[in-house]
Amino acid sequence: MAVFTPVTATDLAAFLTRYDIGTATSFKGIAEGVQNSNFLLETTSGRFILTLYEERVDIGALPWFLALTTHLADKHLPVPRPIVDRAGIALQTLNGRPACLIEFVPGVSVTEPTVAQSHAIGVALGRLHAAVRDFTAERANNLGQPYWPEMAARCAGRSGEIDASLPDLIDAALAATADWPGDLPRATIHTDLFPDNVLMLEGEVTGLIDFYFACTDLRAFDYATTHAAWCFSGDGGVYHADRAAALAAGYAESHGLTAPETAALPRLGQGAALRFTLTRAYDWLNTPPDALVTRKDPMAFARRLAWYAGATPQMVLGGAGAPDAPLQQ
Amino acid sequence: MAVFTPVTATDLAAFLTRYDIGTATSFKGIAEGVQNSNFLLETTSGRFILTLYEERVDIGALPWFLALTTHLADKHLPVPRPIVDRAGIALQTLNGRPACLIEFVPGVSVTEPTVAQSHAIGVALGRLHAAVRDFTAERANNLGQPYWPEMAARCAGRSGEIDASLPDLIDAALAATADWPGDLPRATIHTDLFPDNVLMLEGEVTGLIDFYFACTDLRAFDYATTHAAWCFSGDGGVYHADRAAALAAGYAESHGLTAPETAALPRLGQGAALRFTLTRAYDWLNTPPDALVTRKDPMAFARRLAWYAGATPQMVLGGAGAPDAPLQQ
Repeated sequence: MAVFTPVTATDLAAFLTRYDIGTATSFKGIAEGVQNSNFLLETTSGRFILTLYEERVDIGALPWFLALTTHLADKHLPVPRPIVDRAGIALQTLNGRPACLIEFVPGVSVTEPTVAQSHAIGVALGRLHAAVRDFTAERANNLGQPYWPEMAARCAGRSGEIDASLPDLIDAALAATADWPGDLPRATIHTDLFPDNVLMLEGEVTGLIDFYFACTDLRAFDYATTHAAWCFSGDGGVYHADRAAALAAGYAESHGLTAPETAALPRLGQGAALRFTLTRAYDWLNTPPDALVTRKDPMAFARRLAWYAGATPQMVLGGAGAPDAPLQQ
Repeated sequence: MAVFTPVTATDLAAFLTRYDIGTATSFKGIAEGVQNSNFLLETTSGRFILTLYEERVDIGALPWFLALTTHLADKHLPVPRPIVDRAGIALQTLNGRPACLIEFVPGVSVTEPTVAQSHAIGVALGRLHAAVRDFTAERANNLGQPYWPEMAARCAGRSGEIDASLPDLIDAALAATADWPGDLPRATIHTDLFPDNVLMLEGEVTGLIDFYFACTDLRAFDYATTHAAWCFSGDGGVYHADRAAALAAGYAESHGLTAPETAALPRLGQGAALRFTLTRAYDWLNTPPDALVTRKDPMAFARRLAWYAGATPQMVLGGAGAPDAPLQQ
């Protein structure tokens, strides 16, 4: 939540001469994302986001990320389009950082999703999966299932400092996800479609943002990640089956799950919850408590982990068997 | 440069019901100021800044600050106006913090001021001093001259850790400013009119912002602070007499200095440079080097301190005797 690389008015004016978008009338650093420096830019011709990519992003994959979001914008998905300069180039360098000017889209990030919003994101996820069918370039998922034992090891036996139950939860999840449904259909997936990466306006999805964890992996793993992100209370303690049912219905409208994908949902959910438990635990153990970055609680995902370990496919879909599922009533 | 207090879409929607400004269409935390949480808000009726006041601001003085900026906006100064709710109230509470919705003004912060911009800010400072003649409410300057010995003591003898020359520079400046021209005219002053607190567009000042250090003190101390902020290179190593001459000419157009004020300029400049040397030194010594906040170099103002110690009033005005003053050529 910070600007890491400053950009002065002079830097900006020189940068904008590469483009046909006029001159700056307003320019403010925005506190969005913990990975990049982002600025909201208004020029005499419109509004844009200027992103300078910092070290946490996979810099080598930037051409792939920008090709993906350009592809999605071309397919009329609500994905902010990278802006090209007069030479047709989107990826630039500014103040020693890779940089890109990106279309501004309106909308407000969701915080506590409603059932209607969960339906809308299900539809949007399905449209995303439909739109990448002809996006054939691949990027490996360097936070995927093969890496989880190594990611757990990087916490160096210290996860018990976060919560006494965490080491056992992680060990059990590593053992369970070692049996991984690796033969399910693969696709380009977002893998980080949390509510704060979605902009909405009057119930419509106006922006799907932050594709910097996108990769090629099991398509239904994207569904599981979105489910984990949207269908629980923030602390992971309450499962909202009504949101899960709405997510499933929305996704079925625009894409749909295959029978093997549906059968694998609890295992995929365990994987999604484990991935976020591990990255949050690492950040928690390696961020000073007094740093200005808000540390995200790893236990919020450890609780989801425990839920998925006892879930059936129907429960993940918000149907029979879920604690407050409509079908139970 | 961060958002300290999060505001969710739900928090925001409830907050906006107090106002007649429509509903949110975009809402982004902005990385402006190290003291408050600021958000850029767009609604169906316009654009606004939402500020949540954090602990570093003098919370008790918020009604005074907002009365001052409302007064200045009423006088057609380019000062963003606090927005009142349907009951006529500007100062609200949101998520446990004092909060205010403020008019959005266009413009881009200055970084390396030009001569023309220095002239423009001189004019704006004079207009500010003219506009507060009938603003009679007072606020003590708790970072003013009587407090400097105490502020130096708070660095607890550690200023030598920053630079070996710093303890002697501070001691000399404390001794010099003990002889303080306290009988000069008093007024409501900004005291922090640095380039990053000024928005400009095509040479015009479109915004004077961040009045949260404003107070009642020597009027010419505001001139001296503005001089210290605008007329040196960022590191304080180079004095730009051409900018100083433009600042003086601009201020003379809209307000002007009295003869005793002019005579006191070198001493006032020492005071201004000392005040920023001391606050920066304290922050430097008390901010972890790996914190996400950029620490501002105290030596940039210690160098200005040394310059003012050897300056004449004419040099401060950009005239004869200044290293690269036009009059020398």
